[in-house]
Amino acid sequence: MLNNIQIILVGITHPGNIGAAARAMKTMGLSQLRLVQPKHFPCAEATARATGADDILVNAQCFETFEESLRNCHIIFGASVRQRAIAWPTLTPKACAEKALECADNVAIVFGREQSGLTNQELELCNYLVTIPTNPTFCSLNVAAAVQILAYELRIKHEELKIKNDNSSAKTVFPKFHPPASAEAIAQFYQHLEQALIDIDFLKPQNPRQLMRHLHRLFNRVQLLDSEVSLLRGILTAAQKSVQDTKKTD
Amino acid sequence: MLNNIQIILVGITHPGNIGAAARAMKTMGLSQLRLVQPKHFPCAEATARATGADDILVNAQCFETFEESLRNCHIIFGASVRQRAIAWPTLTPKACAEKALECADNVAIVFGREQSGLTNQELELCNYLVTIPTNPTFCSLNVAAAVQILAYELRIKHEELKIKNDNSSAKTVFPKFHPPASAEAIAQFYQHLEQALIDIDFLKPQNPRQLMRHLHRLFNRVQLLDSEVSLLRGILTAAQKSVQDTKKTD
Repeated sequence: MLNNIQIILVGITHPGNIGAAARAMKTMGLSQLRLVQPKHFPCAEATARATGADDILVNAQCFETFEESLRNCHIIFGASVRQRAIAWPTLTPKACAEKALECADNVAIVFGREQSGLTNQELELCNYLVTIPTNPTFCSLNVAAAVQILAYELRIKHEELKIKNDNSSAKTVFPKFHPPASAEAIAQFYQHLEQALIDIDFLKPQNPRQLMRHLHRLFNRVQLLDSEVSLLRGILTAAQKSVQDTKKTD
Repeated sequence: MLNNIQIILVGITHPGNIGAAARAMKTMGLSQLRLVQPKHFPCAEATARATGADDILVNAQCFETFEESLRNCHIIFGASVRQRAIAWPTLTPKACAEKALECADNVAIVFGREQSGLTNQELELCNYLVTIPTNPTFCSLNVAAAVQILAYELRIKHEELKIKNDNSSAKTVFPKFHPPASAEAIAQFYQHLEQALIDIDFLKPQNPRQLMRHLHRLFNRVQLLDSEVSLLRGILTAAQKSVQDTKKTD
């Protein structure tokens, strides 16, 4: 459940980042924000950057210490871009999302300070380190951008689980607004195409080269819809008609 | 190759978003930024938000029109959070990253205006729509956050491919027998198609309906090769010629 996931931001100095993180969360369906010693909060800049996600800021809980902010959380993931000297159990963002959504209880995903991230003491309180892959020569990921990436992976996993649950409870029926063309319709289209190309004198029956093969290869790639076959055949008929007109006037 | 990927931002009004997008790109190893009619650029706010990715801003190219910004790009992905009324071939960010990195040539990933995204006219120039999954009740994703998500998926795929290549003892080289058509060639093909449809009296300029849009949608799905564009234009010329013959004999 996305509602069980607590996003914890530790020691953020720029309030804009808190607002941007709230917006990142809400776009992906997260709602629970906890703040540890934010330098400025509440703050107009945070609200401005949240643009519509200010409910998350209003409901955000503030804590004096990191330990307190972990209240009621059963699994704690610490986000990092750096490879730490100490070997830590490290997850990808995707694996973190899977583990977080498997858990029926509250989990915390923790993001550290803009300049220095989480301290080793803070990491020691985490069950897992989540490492976001970055360019090794420039790993300066903005904290709200890091929240966005984790929130995105959570959304992806959440939607996968939802589809899985929907399929198991009741069969989902996808309405077919755009039916693909049948094999017969496609075959008739190719016949029509070949005749039209002969009529406009582009295809010479005595020397067809590889022409129709190339056109098959092209149109087979598209998986034409019924409506598209009708459209293309309408064009062919119009082209044929113009040639017939020529012949009449000859 | 990450260096082949052009991030195109169209009509951005807040320079901070351009800076944040540049930072998002650089953290994931992207470098090529193109801007279409940015409201303020260059701008101190963009540089401030780029924090260390200002080389990307310095090297960014500005364009007056979206069409010009697509120069040399062979596949164009348009990013969107909305589900469009018209059915468009839609990819997830992950599938977009896979396709983009499969292509040996330049590809473009395009992001639209803060308020309104890309216009339907702009989307018609795209081969694919990339839809970032969001909370259905709050899909107001910041444009730099959208860049971050796509850039992240590109990084993930890039690292997967690198591992794969490192593991294969002999380097596989894919010969380019079938170069895809460039955006310019495709644009010229559409112009030629439209004119030919007018010439054969299928498209009425005073009542064009959705005709060209449907044809864009069809041919954009194919990713036409250079040789196929030549073939199709040959057919169009033959059709036009038969009409000219009619007119001569009138």
